[in-house]
Amino acid sequence: MGNTFGTLFKVTTFGESHGVAMGCVIDGCPAGLNLNEEIIQEFLNRRKPGQSNFTTSRSENDLCEILSGIEQGITLGTPIAIIIRNKDKNPHDYSELNKVFRPGHADYTTQLKYGLAAQSGGGRASARETVGRVAAAAVAKVYLTSIFPELNLMAWVQRIKEIESKLEYHNFSFADIEKSAIRCPDPIVEEQMKIAILNAKEQGDSLGGCIRCVAKNIPAGLGEPVFNKLEAALATAMLSLPACKSFEIGNGFASTYLFGSENNDQYYLNNTGNIYTKTNRSGGVQGGISNGMNLEFSVGFKPISTIYKEQNTVTKTNSQEIKFSIPKGRHDSCVLPRAVPIVEAMCWLVLTDQYMLQSTRKIYD
Amino acid sequence: MGNTFGTLFKVTTFGESHGVAMGCVIDGCPAGLNLNEEIIQEFLNRRKPGQSNFTTSRSENDLCEILSGIEQGITLGTPIAIIIRNKDKNPHDYSELNKVFRPGHADYTTQLKYGLAAQSGGGRASARETVGRVAAAAVAKVYLTSIFPELNLMAWVQRIKEIESKLEYHNFSFADIEKSAIRCPDPIVEEQMKIAILNAKEQGDSLGGCIRCVAKNIPAGLGEPVFNKLEAALATAMLSLPACKSFEIGNGFASTYLFGSENNDQYYLNNTGNIYTKTNRSGGVQGGISNGMNLEFSVGFKPISTIYKEQNTVTKTNSQEIKFSIPKGRHDSCVLPRAVPIVEAMCWLVLTDQYMLQSTRKIYD
Amino acid sequence: MGNTFGTLFKVTTFGESHGVAMGCVIDGCPAGLNLNEEIIQEFLNRRKPGQSNFTTSRSENDLCEILSGIEQGITLGTPIAIIIRNKDKNPHDYSELNKVFRPGHADYTTQLKYGLAAQSGGGRASARETVGRVAAAAVAKVYLTSIFPELNLMAWVQRIKEIESKLEYHNFSFADIEKSAIRCPDPIVEEQMKIAILNAKEQGDSLGGCIRCVAKNIPAGLGEPVFNKLEAALATAMLSLPACKSFEIGNGFASTYLFGSENNDQYYLNNTGNIYTKTNRSGGVQGGISNGMNLEFSVGFKPISTIYKEQNTVTKTNSQEIKFSIPKGRHDSCVLPRAVPIVEAMCWLVLTDQYMLQSTRKIYD
Amino acid sequence: MGNTFGTLFKVTTFGESHGVAMGCVIDGCPAGLNLNEEIIQEFLNRRKPGQSNFTTSRSENDLCEILSGIEQGITLGTPIAIIIRNKDKNPHDYSELNKVFRPGHADYTTQLKYGLAAQSGGGRASARETVGRVAAAAVAKVYLTSIFPELNLMAWVQRIKEIESKLEYHNFSFADIEKSAIRCPDPIVEEQMKIAILNAKEQGDSLGGCIRCVAKNIPAGLGEPVFNKLEAALATAMLSLPACKSFEIGNGFASTYLFGSENNDQYYLNNTGNIYTKTNRSGGVQGGISNGMNLEFSVGFKPISTIYKEQNTVTKTNSQEIKFSIPKGRHDSCVLPRAVPIVEAMCWLVLTDQYMLQSTRKIYD
Repeated sequence: MGNTFGTLFKVTTFGESHGVAMGCVIDGCPAGLNLNEEIIQEFLNRRKPGQSNFTTSRSENDLCEILSGIEQGITLGTPIAIIIRNKDKNPHDYSELNKVFRPGHADYTTQLKYGLAAQSGGGRASARETVGRVAAAAVAKVYLTSIFPELNLMAWVQRIKEIESKLEYHNFSFADIEKSAIRCPDPIVEEQMKIAILNAKEQGDSLGGCIRCVAKNIPAGLGEPVFNKLEAALATAMLSLPACKSFEIGNGFASTYLFGSENNDQYYLNNTGNIYTKTNRSGGVQGGISNGMNLEFSVGFKPISTIYKEQNTVTKTNSQEIKFSIPKGRHDSCVLPRAVPIVEAMCWLVLTDQYMLQSTRKIYD
Repeated sequence: MGNTFGTLFKVTTFGESHGVAMGCVIDGCPAGLNLNEEIIQEFLNRRKPGQSNFTTSRSENDLCEILSGIEQGITLGTPIAIIIRNKDKNPHDYSELNKVFRPGHADYTTQLKYGLAAQSGGGRASARETVGRVAAAAVAKVYLTSIFPELNLMAWVQRIKEIESKLEYHNFSFADIEKSAIRCPDPIVEEQMKIAILNAKEQGDSLGGCIRCVAKNIPAGLGEPVFNKLEAALATAMLSLPACKSFEIGNGFASTYLFGSENNDQYYLNNTGNIYTKTNRSGGVQGGISNGMNLEFSVGFKPISTIYKEQNTVTKTNSQEIKFSIPKGRHDSCVLPRAVPIVEAMCWLVLTDQYMLQSTRKIYD
Repeated sequence: MGNTFGTLFKVTTFGESHGVAMGCVIDGCPAGLNLNEEIIQEFLNRRKPGQSNFTTSRSENDLCEILSGIEQGITLGTPIAIIIRNKDKNPHDYSELNKVFRPGHADYTTQLKYGLAAQSGGGRASARETVGRVAAAAVAKVYLTSIFPELNLMAWVQRIKEIESKLEYHNFSFADIEKSAIRCPDPIVEEQMKIAILNAKEQGDSLGGCIRCVAKNIPAGLGEPVFNKLEAALATAMLSLPACKSFEIGNGFASTYLFGSENNDQYYLNNTGNIYTKTNRSGGVQGGISNGMNLEFSVGFKPISTIYKEQNTVTKTNSQEIKFSIPKGRHDSCVLPRAVPIVEAMCWLVLTDQYMLQSTRKIYD
Repeated sequence: MGNTFGTLFKVTTFGESHGVAMGCVIDGCPAGLNLNEEIIQEFLNRRKPGQSNFTTSRSENDLCEILSGIEQGITLGTPIAIIIRNKDKNPHDYSELNKVFRPGHADYTTQLKYGLAAQSGGGRASARETVGRVAAAAVAKVYLTSIFPELNLMAWVQRIKEIESKLEYHNFSFADIEKSAIRCPDPIVEEQMKIAILNAKEQGDSLGGCIRCVAKNIPAGLGEPVFNKLEAALATAMLSLPACKSFEIGNGFASTYLFGSENNDQYYLNNTGNIYTKTNRSGGVQGGISNGMNLEFSVGFKPISTIYKEQNTVTKTNSQEIKFSIPKGRHDSCVLPRAVPIVEAMCWLVLTDQYMLQSTRKIYD
């Protein structure tokens, strides 16, 4: 249970990090859309490992294969199944690690929950699991932008540890973010982040940080009160990501330090006579429903659990306390650059599902 | 859509703030539990308005009536419907307010979504909506504690604006919290909070802050990877609350400032030979699954939107910019004291549903 | 679990036969519809007991109260909760019966499933449970006919035991059916049915039979392949009714006696150039999707289990075989006349939900 | 939408008849079960085409590949993805047929629903779609029989057109059925069926009929009143099968011809002191809940739509009435022999899901 996301644009993902293949099935995508493997591949390439010195050296070209739901480049309205075979898996890589519960990893809790665990790698708890989400998001984007061509969204690394960019998002573009190996569009801060990542890597340590995401030109009216509010759907989407521990919509925790009179977004009429808010501290939602302003949120990722320093832990089979170190390997020491397209992917899935939910209401049109 | 919470312990709530009644239907509660209106009432009383000078003066005794699912004080396994009639509603109270879109409220977005809105009060966007959740949580608690008698949870006001209690939760109890009108168990800080609230009230302004929640002795193995991880379920539960804008599990955003070597919770054997973690920065979850340690999370609430200061906005029917002030009324100027039992309620619902999901797996026992 | 019907037009029902109240919550009804208690009452009145000599004499005026979701006669888009209080309940009526497992009733299986059972009447297994469905169907009809004013549906008693009407449905109307106390629009057959029912009543026995239902002018394209085909949704809707044991779409079992060349519905162009089928043996669906022809199906109801003849059974508490008779009471001896509006109700719910599912697809318009 | 079956044992199927691959994803299967491709293959082999002269000559070896959810022959508790590549697809086979709406097929309704249709074969409406269900059922059986080793189920062809076997199921076994090319365990009747099928084939016509299914030693207490009753779940499962038009539980329509006093199953104590019913006209359910007796139901399949006789229809693109004939091809002229394992498959899925739903209730144990 728990491997399906969405009510009407339903995405089911599958695959273990070191199993045969990863993938997804999308049920609910309308017929008549132009879709092919190249479009999906473009999305996957942004997420794939080995893109730079700052991410894992696991070698996966992550080539996708569409198994169903598309004929001659057109969606049929039937389930779209996409698979990505695992190439650089090595079940034996992890044999030593299998003897202990690695701190911060899901080894111990997987054992508690299932009575056993995938014997190699993180199984479904690995960040590799997100490849299916990204494939599905490519489909979501094709669909949603076919209806709202102006809709666009971008995420970026706003902070790594205490190194934070203060750049306003009005001053950079998606392309600016993608030019950066760190996916931080602030060149000076980016340099500091690179140094911090390489330092941590050298120390065998890891770093966390924050990703900010903005969606522009989204339709108003998205979000289903009361339990499926737009921010609640985003929150669960983000907290379902590996290493994600926190979420805030709009100015989030910062708003808790303001008076209501400082925090309320007041309405005005713009020059086209439309209602806007002067500020956007709410992040584009009131009462769980989008107001047509930009959707803005932040997601916090802990420093990843895989470090190469000595740690205390307990052995699996005979429950002995030991000290252990992971032999230096190929893991990311900072997941944030690669988490950017994954945050975007989950946002695409949320917006698409919420749009479909809202599109069922036609009475008042 | 969006008014049902949970997969197996399914709670559907209904009711507008100034409608006939609020309520909930709980589908999935097992048969054979002792349950009656007194047990539910006790829960409702902690949430009800008018408890002190620091909360709204709306007068609702919030008496519940059980319509189904219980016979002679025993649950039947059938849906439990509970209603709470609205007494102190006054549809006309709001007639002036109905002419403008109140900043920060859901008036405007409700109009965008539904093409109309409840003409009085906040409809479903009102915090009054949460009364059904609290009634359902009373049932959840009865069920879950019948299986795990040691399981207990408590939430408290940790911070209002910048006034923060640094008290460790090991040093106070549920009873200590309940003694406080602010639900802050730190007497010195509580005094400062009271002053801040009364000042804000006098100024016609409002305050936000943070609630912390801890659940002890919860079973290990709860949480459904990947999309229904325990923290993802909690996040959506909390973000579905009115005025909630942020969520963090464990040390959340704070962990983003640490190295992995500082943040990982290392395992050891306690004196009974069980595996524990020395620290609990993860908040009791790894990979979305509870590890048996205390579950800990924080929830941020914005200062509520209802303030009595002059604000700019736009009128509903003829789209004119105007300045307006809400005549001083009975609204809370700080929602946090009353939000404490609501945060707990959502946590009870999440834990109960996750327990039921996990209880379907019996192979490995 | 199992008390909610529908994916987008979600109806949750609650209430035990001899509890405080019956009711439903409808989540997903769009805003802006004209709705009030009179409209719902009209539906309920068709189902309510005591309408004639041929049905139960239990006296229930079945007055409904709308608790939420409607303001000034207009739906708000929020959950609509409706309750119907039980008046003529008499928990003590059944005290003798509580000592044995009544053959054909759910007493024994309820005990097996829940470990206990409602101590009076049939609890949720009673046909009284359907009152919430009928209330919800009134809402569904208002919504669906606001979009498809020509859509109409009617069910009628086609057969009671071996007494069958051969009248073609093109020869009678909804009004003709409603004029009949038996809801059989064939006056000669109706007379025979009345006699059969009164005879069975006198004998303390019960009768089953078949209801046929036709929906005209329904939109094409309804039905979600593969598991939520239109006929699959109807089948589960009907088999969820008390005493229903069989379902067939179109000519159903009769088609199994034909060659494919006899059974296929061949296409032609009618005088407006639209595609029609010359015959409608499929009942208006191919591949689980409505084709725009009339939807037709039959539902079989067993003779109800409550009879007043002596039967063999086993006692509840001490598991002794005994012979027992139910003292003559007020039960229907033939449920079919009152089942007609219930069959229609479930059909309204299915069509509305399927329409909403289909309305999310807008690409090709 | 509509491609997922089950609440806790969730099966999502995908694949078009002439696309790249068919398959399924099973979410909810517990960890720790022995499972491999051989076990699944054995199930698939019973369904695969080309088994005899009486079924289609499409050549598919239907080899399955497990992509996830299993490691070293043990289930991990994660989603199990299984694919079966289409070998003998020939998109061009159907080019002529693509010009007309074939009577009885889903061509026309697919066009109405999606605005387009798979250009070859039946897409998802093809019986080939069921291969994913059968793969999933193999997993369901492994799981359910690991808990209830005595549980077994068998289906058989009871009637083809008017040729009906009257053999009581107590007189034959699963093996007897499997020995028959027609899957009719009554040798004399089987011979008549063979002749009828070959005759129909020669005539270019098709035949329908009835399959009966019995499940023995199923646990009592399965079925979720009120909308997910056991028979309601079975009904929707069966009506979701291609060409299925009718369903009855127990003696179904036959019971409508009986008095209640004839139809009620009376209770007695067997020699071990357990409660049994003398008869089983209910098919093993009362009030939607299994009573521990054998589960029995029948499913009616229409004669399949593909016939080689001349038929009237309308062309797709320019809406002209024409007469057309399908060139003699490889289609089954009677689907029933191959539908037997599919009916069983859906029954396995229903029972497994219902068992998991019931297993969440532990209070009264």
